[in-house]
Amino acid sequence: MKFALLVEYDGTRYFGFQYQTGVPTIQGELEKAIKKVTGEMVRIKGAGRTDAGAHAKGQVVSFESETSLPLANFVRALNFYLPRDIAVRAGREVPSDFDARRSALSREYRYVILNSPTPSSLLYRRALLLSKRLDVERMSQGAKMLVGEHNFAPFAGSLGCRNPRRRILWAEVNRKGKLVLFDVEADSFLPQQVRRMTAALIRLGLGKLALEEFQELIDCGKVGAARWVAPPYGLYLTRVNYPNLELFAGWENS
Amino acid sequence: MKFALLVEYDGTRYFGFQYQTGVPTIQGELEKAIKKVTGEMVRIKGAGRTDAGAHAKGQVVSFESETSLPLANFVRALNFYLPRDIAVRAGREVPSDFDARRSALSREYRYVILNSPTPSSLLYRRALLLSKRLDVERMSQGAKMLVGEHNFAPFAGSLGCRNPRRRILWAEVNRKGKLVLFDVEADSFLPQQVRRMTAALIRLGLGKLALEEFQELIDCGKVGAARWVAPPYGLYLTRVNYPNLELFAGWENS
Repeated sequence: MKFALLVEYDGTRYFGFQYQTGVPTIQGELEKAIKKVTGEMVRIKGAGRTDAGAHAKGQVVSFESETSLPLANFVRALNFYLPRDIAVRAGREVPSDFDARRSALSREYRYVILNSPTPSSLLYRRALLLSKRLDVERMSQGAKMLVGEHNFAPFAGSLGCRNPRRRILWAEVNRKGKLVLFDVEADSFLPQQVRRMTAALIRLGLGKLALEEFQELIDCGKVGAARWVAPPYGLYLTRVNYPNLELFAGWENS
Repeated sequence: MKFALLVEYDGTRYFGFQYQTGVPTIQGELEKAIKKVTGEMVRIKGAGRTDAGAHAKGQVVSFESETSLPLANFVRALNFYLPRDIAVRAGREVPSDFDARRSALSREYRYVILNSPTPSSLLYRRALLLSKRLDVERMSQGAKMLVGEHNFAPFAGSLGCRNPRRRILWAEVNRKGKLVLFDVEADSFLPQQVRRMTAALIRLGLGKLALEEFQELIDCGKVGAARWVAPPYGLYLTRVNYPNLELFAGWENS
């Protein structure tokens, strides 16, 4: 049987989502918990390969298992064995051809900036502190310029053999009290793309980059041209969208 | 000169607000940071003596200092020396007769319940997890019964020589997505009062206590009659109100 899990984590302690030997990763911890519950060694697929220190509210993973446990008990048992900074929020049995990574239509990310002269203890390692007031109006204009299909190589840390074209469905910057939030949805993202877009938007908001320069960056096509990278701890994978809407109905509210 | 600070903390690591020798406390850390910045050994006053493990978004402390640092630099220096789970959000110079504890007109607390079958990693130690669905309507009715002046001895952990009469100005229970929030404001609270009121409201919401029994508890006058105590890590001191409104205008938005 194939299962999908909705997973939330505080990425502070981890070397990112993707499995690496000898260091703690989200994938590694999930696979260890599945082994403890089912006795099976599985390889899970994740919808988004979040960076070291980045968080997730709505990561989705999928894997095969022969467990005979009822789903609710399976989820409860996984949470029992998982460290407290990783939580399975919900689970579903899915069709055998479902793949959390390949089946995803789009990913949504949020970058959280605490725009305040003073730090927050409750947002420590959960938001980027910027004391200088950001011009959110300019950042919003920049965000609009990102929308659509572009060659996003300038915002990629590395490309490998990837096609650098990605399609951004929407992107918004909003102030909410002391927070400035950058929300963005795309079919998929290049490595470091959200953190680099965030950093460039911040430069817009600080008046260190003109809107024309921002547009030139988008258009230039050169890998890593947007060379500033926002730190990972303000970044959250918030949601992954799949075509099988009914399959996941309401699972975010569990 | 007299100063007031708006302080936010994650109380997880601390033995409560109040100073105790040999163990980490919020008061102790603040006094240590003030000493590092000014060289002065001060005793600070706090508006609310939060329990071990409880948090604050809007604690207020006051103290005397002869520092000649401009206020913004003073706050920045304090944050530099404070551990990352305590943050000074804002500071004000205040009249010499101001006392964060005695001058307070009222305190507001929030208790955060994650009402979900599955845990949250991002709210670990920041909210109480309750998997059984709470009847928020009944809890709201209970909250209304708490409003007004009563002898709150039944909801006190200990009284000493305190007058057990307190005046609750408002109290509300609301569902917000997966969260159930209990918000309450009173002139002041008895030790453990919010945690005991929360626990009794939870029993209402679980159907383990009838509204008539809840009313009897309020009326009985016996110390500690409401013997259930909600754990501290769901509790936040959110705000302290003072008569000198103009003095603190906007400091929560810094």
